[in-house]
Amino acid sequence: MNSKNNIQVAFSPELFEYYNCTDSITVIVDIFRATSSICTAFENGVKEIIPTPNLDEARKLKEKGYIVAAERDGKVLDFADFGNSPFNFTPERVKGKSVAYSTTNGTKAILKANESKMVIISSFINLTATANLISRNNFDVIILCAGWKGNFCLEDSIFAGALAEKLLDTGLFSTNCDSAKASLDLWRNAKDDIIGYIDKTAQRKRLAKLGLDDILDYCFTPDSSNVVPFYHKGTIEAYNL
Amino acid sequence: MNSKNNIQVAFSPELFEYYNCTDSITVIVDIFRATSSICTAFENGVKEIIPTPNLDEARKLKEKGYIVAAERDGKVLDFADFGNSPFNFTPERVKGKSVAYSTTNGTKAILKANESKMVIISSFINLTATANLISRNNFDVIILCAGWKGNFCLEDSIFAGALAEKLLDTGLFSTNCDSAKASLDLWRNAKDDIIGYIDKTAQRKRLAKLGLDDILDYCFTPDSSNVVPFYHKGTIEAYNL
Repeated sequence: MNSKNNIQVAFSPELFEYYNCTDSITVIVDIFRATSSICTAFENGVKEIIPTPNLDEARKLKEKGYIVAAERDGKVLDFADFGNSPFNFTPERVKGKSVAYSTTNGTKAILKANESKMVIISSFINLTATANLISRNNFDVIILCAGWKGNFCLEDSIFAGALAEKLLDTGLFSTNCDSAKASLDLWRNAKDDIIGYIDKTAQRKRLAKLGLDDILDYCFTPDSSNVVPFYHKGTIEAYNL
Repeated sequence: MNSKNNIQVAFSPELFEYYNCTDSITVIVDIFRATSSICTAFENGVKEIIPTPNLDEARKLKEKGYIVAAERDGKVLDFADFGNSPFNFTPERVKGKSVAYSTTNGTKAILKANESKMVIISSFINLTATANLISRNNFDVIILCAGWKGNFCLEDSIFAGALAEKLLDTGLFSTNCDSAKASLDLWRNAKDDIIGYIDKTAQRKRLAKLGLDDILDYCFTPDSSNVVPFYHKGTIEAYNL
């Protein structure tokens, strides 16, 4: 009998309907950029983050005194304090503050996972801390990739493989999931030279075009933070170990 | 300027909404088992196949004189002539005949692709013939994986990689699609020993449990047929080159 906890990966919020998350921890991943930014904000001492898909709501939160990170098509919105890059979430700006973060896909993913035992926010920034937190809890785990505009993307998938590998290495987990196996394969192809892998696959060109290339190295560097944010009833807070 | 035609891969019918297929050839893939069976039937001289998601409709087609391939949960249905395995579509049974083939996911995928320039049916059985047909037409291509019960699966994805590789080798195609790049990576990991790869990923265990292991070698052996079936207005026929 296999008493190990199971690792599954969902490549898009559109595919999350195929998973039963009620007895699982769900890990939300959106490397470019929502979860990398959220993890950075918590490393830098933010008090709480409200994921906000709707710009009207972001505007209302601004009026209520929240700091607002919001952009569309790469431009910071007029009512916002700054944009969505992780580099914007400096300690000077966010320490002790409540921040509304405008993210369509990230929020969609988080809301889909709402019935899970626990919803945690992860990225390379807090990879090992995420694996440690999951390993200390005796639940199955679903890694939910927000994807690029909702569709499969390489950056979220290789992260899913990196986290799956760390969990398998503990000996406490196994996987029966094709998406998890594919993620592990992609990660093993990429891990020795992630930036080179991203270059090879011409992602970098796309990212440069989108003004994302400045955060590439940062977003793929593991473990700059030990904080794991978690989502509960509309708010993201730091998980106290 | 890049004048090459673009290759894209959709890992599930649920993700097909992210693709604009109106100017593309869409290739339907469902290795276990719909498209492997359909390709086998055409190699063995079937006249036409009606993909039939609804069992009531399959029953009606039976009454109209069609041969019916239909099973649920691995059991041939009482009114059907045989089940869904490619091994059932022998020349003795199908040559010159009209067959109703009961497939939920396969049909779902086909119907989603209905607006494409052309909808073709592919599998390892007719891999090279498929690549040749696509290369002779000057269109972009979308490889649509039916998936395992609609979710991402390895067998369809490595086929997508195999077809993408063949198309890239012609020099007429390029790709800007993350799913295509992931498929190519998975295929390159698998290609030297597909059955070993499937074993390694423990798919075989799942397949044995589902009674699919007898068709494993057959479904991964390329080019046993030169016929490419295509879908038009409810019916699948052989494409005449």
